[in-house]
Amino acid sequence: MSVTQARRESGVQHMKWWGWGVEGVGFHYHDKPAFAPFVRFAVGLDLDTAAPVEPPAFESISVSPSVAPPELVSVLAAIVGEDRVTDDDLERVVHTYGKSLRDLVRIRANRIERSPDLVVYPGSEDEVQRVVDAVVAANAVLIPFGGGSNIAGSLEPLPQETRPVVSLDMGRLRRVLEIDEDSGLARIEAGALGPDLEAQLAERGWTLGHFPDSFTHSTLGGWVATRSSGMQSDKYGDIADIVRGLHVARPGGMLVLRPLPSTSTGPSLREMILGSEGRLGVITEVTVQVHRVPEKRDIYAYFFRDWESGLKAMQAIAESDAAPSVTRISDARESAFSLSTSKESRGFSKFAQNALMGLLKRRGWNLDEICLSFIGYEGAAEHAKRQKSLVDAIVKKHGGIGVGKGPGVLYDQKKFDTPYLRDFLLDRGAAGDVSETAAPWSRLKPLYDGVVAAANRAFEQIGIKGWIMCHLSHSYHSGACLYFTFSFVFGDDPLGEYDVVKSAVQQAFIDNGGTLSHHHAVGLEHAPWMEQDVSKAGVELLGDLFSAADPTSALNPGKILAR
Amino acid sequence: MSVTQARRESGVQHMKWWGWGVEGVGFHYHDKPAFAPFVRFAVGLDLDTAAPVEPPAFESISVSPSVAPPELVSVLAAIVGEDRVTDDDLERVVHTYGKSLRDLVRIRANRIERSPDLVVYPGSEDEVQRVVDAVVAANAVLIPFGGGSNIAGSLEPLPQETRPVVSLDMGRLRRVLEIDEDSGLARIEAGALGPDLEAQLAERGWTLGHFPDSFTHSTLGGWVATRSSGMQSDKYGDIADIVRGLHVARPGGMLVLRPLPSTSTGPSLREMILGSEGRLGVITEVTVQVHRVPEKRDIYAYFFRDWESGLKAMQAIAESDAAPSVTRISDARESAFSLSTSKESRGFSKFAQNALMGLLKRRGWNLDEICLSFIGYEGAAEHAKRQKSLVDAIVKKHGGIGVGKGPGVLYDQKKFDTPYLRDFLLDRGAAGDVSETAAPWSRLKPLYDGVVAAANRAFEQIGIKGWIMCHLSHSYHSGACLYFTFSFVFGDDPLGEYDVVKSAVQQAFIDNGGTLSHHHAVGLEHAPWMEQDVSKAGVELLGDLFSAADPTSALNPGKILAR
Repeated sequence: MSVTQARRESGVQHMKWWGWGVEGVGFHYHDKPAFAPFVRFAVGLDLDTAAPVEPPAFESISVSPSVAPPELVSVLAAIVGEDRVTDDDLERVVHTYGKSLRDLVRIRANRIERSPDLVVYPGSEDEVQRVVDAVVAANAVLIPFGGGSNIAGSLEPLPQETRPVVSLDMGRLRRVLEIDEDSGLARIEAGALGPDLEAQLAERGWTLGHFPDSFTHSTLGGWVATRSSGMQSDKYGDIADIVRGLHVARPGGMLVLRPLPSTSTGPSLREMILGSEGRLGVITEVTVQVHRVPEKRDIYAYFFRDWESGLKAMQAIAESDAAPSVTRISDARESAFSLSTSKESRGFSKFAQNALMGLLKRRGWNLDEICLSFIGYEGAAEHAKRQKSLVDAIVKKHGGIGVGKGPGVLYDQKKFDTPYLRDFLLDRGAAGDVSETAAPWSRLKPLYDGVVAAANRAFEQIGIKGWIMCHLSHSYHSGACLYFTFSFVFGDDPLGEYDVVKSAVQQAFIDNGGTLSHHHAVGLEHAPWMEQDVSKAGVELLGDLFSAADPTSALNPGKILAR
Repeated sequence: MSVTQARRESGVQHMKWWGWGVEGVGFHYHDKPAFAPFVRFAVGLDLDTAAPVEPPAFESISVSPSVAPPELVSVLAAIVGEDRVTDDDLERVVHTYGKSLRDLVRIRANRIERSPDLVVYPGSEDEVQRVVDAVVAANAVLIPFGGGSNIAGSLEPLPQETRPVVSLDMGRLRRVLEIDEDSGLARIEAGALGPDLEAQLAERGWTLGHFPDSFTHSTLGGWVATRSSGMQSDKYGDIADIVRGLHVARPGGMLVLRPLPSTSTGPSLREMILGSEGRLGVITEVTVQVHRVPEKRDIYAYFFRDWESGLKAMQAIAESDAAPSVTRISDARESAFSLSTSKESRGFSKFAQNALMGLLKRRGWNLDEICLSFIGYEGAAEHAKRQKSLVDAIVKKHGGIGVGKGPGVLYDQKKFDTPYLRDFLLDRGAAGDVSETAAPWSRLKPLYDGVVAAANRAFEQIGIKGWIMCHLSHSYHSGACLYFTFSFVFGDDPLGEYDVVKSAVQQAFIDNGGTLSHHHAVGLEHAPWMEQDVSKAGVELLGDLFSAADPTSALNPGKILAR
């Protein structure tokens, strides 16, 4: 049996090697009449004439031969079984990159500098531990792999790496092991993908409530290793709040943090593993807070007159006694984008939309400035209703209006499909990418203005018509996450142009009091901003930790810090 | 000018060198008629005949001569000024210990094994940085000192330490530097004591909302360094949630973490400094979340029929949509203790109390099993009212009854006085001490039973009539903090007997799924349980961090881990 066959029989599925999601699924705009005009307006791309490139053929990809010594293959095969360790080229390519724009551009251009030499599929925590120890003993390198959805460059081997590189695929470890129903705690294997673990929890009436954009193709272990955030995190917390216990296979033995609601045992080991991107070991099992599936889980849409009043409303909600599950508002550009991807509306629905816009116009709203907001309510019916009435009053005070549940339902259905749009644009020679940050409330508006200005300067610098839009995605007591999406049609040097825009956006985050990332992690992509974010002494302290905890640099070296 | 005079002129006050709190204040029971009978019943101590010892005279204390070399004194004096560095014996004794039972027993018995050789009082962040660098360069040891209220042995020099030991007193750094009113963030110097910083915030209508039992004598920096929790933490969060930004003087330079609502920059440096007890540097400045002083801040009292139904009610509240600011319930023994410390009630109040007890008795309650609970409500009046109505319904469902605000007001007034009681008992030859833990809801009742049984076995082992009581002090989604208080009359070997009881309690925490401490930190006192709490690999990882971050072991060595 080939490893690919064995893997498939274990239920481990990978995304397309060259793009997001599963084969046969992609973005299309047949039923979205406003989309093509919008794209032409935003980035000057004419979808009628832009002929999409075909998906690359795997045969066109060149992969350097594996440098794994036969002894390492034997040792690993003795641990996981012969048909669970492979140097198959397709497997190696699948495990070379995540799914960042940089990754997709490179892989489509046959630019694979360094692939892992081996891929292993352990089937138990004990096997993971033995793989970790074997790889360290062999002076090789280990990179843990979950769903492969990372967009920060956390998965790729360093190009200059001369030691054998092993990608450890966690896909077979995907069971919900135990639910402590009394405490609302579930022990779950780290390789479980979002839909799989939610289905296992739902069987017994529970939910984790963690829904990142990558949900369908990312794993619990990956969420922990990158400090993920989800759409309902305002209610359920970021993954850092959700994780209570951890098992981590460290060289020499398993690090076990028992599930505790809180503890005072020195520097937090739990918070050292969170965000560690494989540099401290392999997360094998996570005990998480789970919740009873709520009676109500609704998302309502609101319109605001402009971005500033919408931001103020989100801040007022965060400061209030109301506790919504989602608070999200798009700037005018992103609102226009969202409306452009609506399906064709007919009959009464179209009539209602036109009537609403007419009404707002008569009220003196500038339709180009309208900002679309989604706010969610969860819990017992009475609780959800009360939160909505508290929020509605704040919205009204800030001049916004509620437009019902309809758009919210649409949002809920579409939320995991956005990454497909990036592939659609790439097929047509355009970049679409995201960068997100968090900052105190007092810095948000200047930060937003600074980022938009920096992106526009970058577009000008590369002489290209670009587009940048934004939404506020998570609210906290003292600030919020701003999530930017930018797009432009490539010129002659796609990655060079991308670097100019991406760097300008990241630098503007830092310059305006924001962090380099709120929930996408550091990897290689954001490492250049670490020192500006956490200070020189901070980088040194982290480096001290990595060097001491992994003296041979066997564990995903170079990620987070070059050191 | 002597350093003591200079220190006093800077407004730096210390607690009594031999006990808790300020000179002239102590616990008394003149107006608490039920107290003496209770103490006789609980630990067999007859307050009528137990003659209190007099406070020790400082002249009776022997302190070894300072081993600080003159060059180190000169270097430090050049940084902080001559009258801000001292080897005065009283200053050295004040900075030798915290205020744990072990500390007080030792200091009263003239058992000072190792005092710091010098005490310095820097006046700015820059001076702290230069002191850190000077101490490391001199191959000396640095121990940061806040309010001196620590009860985990985090402040004392190791007895075998041969290098010069410098205690860095943060008392002069106590200003609220800036309030970002838009974001609800305040920058505060780390040496600020609780009442001082709350007063500075209150001037502008803000509150930090962090009220540990030690509030009057502990500092912001100390709270961060030990992962403190306060009485309103159910609403405001533990200090770990409250801290957003940090300045830490590390050897070689300042670690600066800018205030961020959330971030994804690898292992959390913020959460490494939290709980670090001086082992990673000196915390000089903290940016914290602050809140508008709420319209309502009320604490209500409730009675439950027994401990089990009371615990179930607290769990149901934590799982519900209600958001109280305080959830606390005492077991029957602690409830009896609380009632014994009530002031004499007369007239209608006494009549009402008797009537209530009579009513409960007729309803079939066993008065010996009654558990007293305090639940707090904060926020806008309507919000507080609504939370109370949600909680009241849950209390009723669990057979409890509300008894109004009166006892809650008393609780609020008395809450910071409990440590004085320990000195009162010590004066009369009895121990009174605390140990606290946290565990998942499913483990709480067995943990409670296990701890009580273990304490009683320990009392039996040392042949002494002992007492142990408990309250639940903080609730989380997945569990809660249980806070135990125990007492016994000393025999011939106070510290030996204390060790037997304290160790039994701590071991029972671990054996029943609890942590070694929820908010009192590790220090020397709890270090023996670290490996059982965070696993062998966890202790090794922490040790790796400390060794790499402080290769000469200059920073408060031996605390948290012996390594």
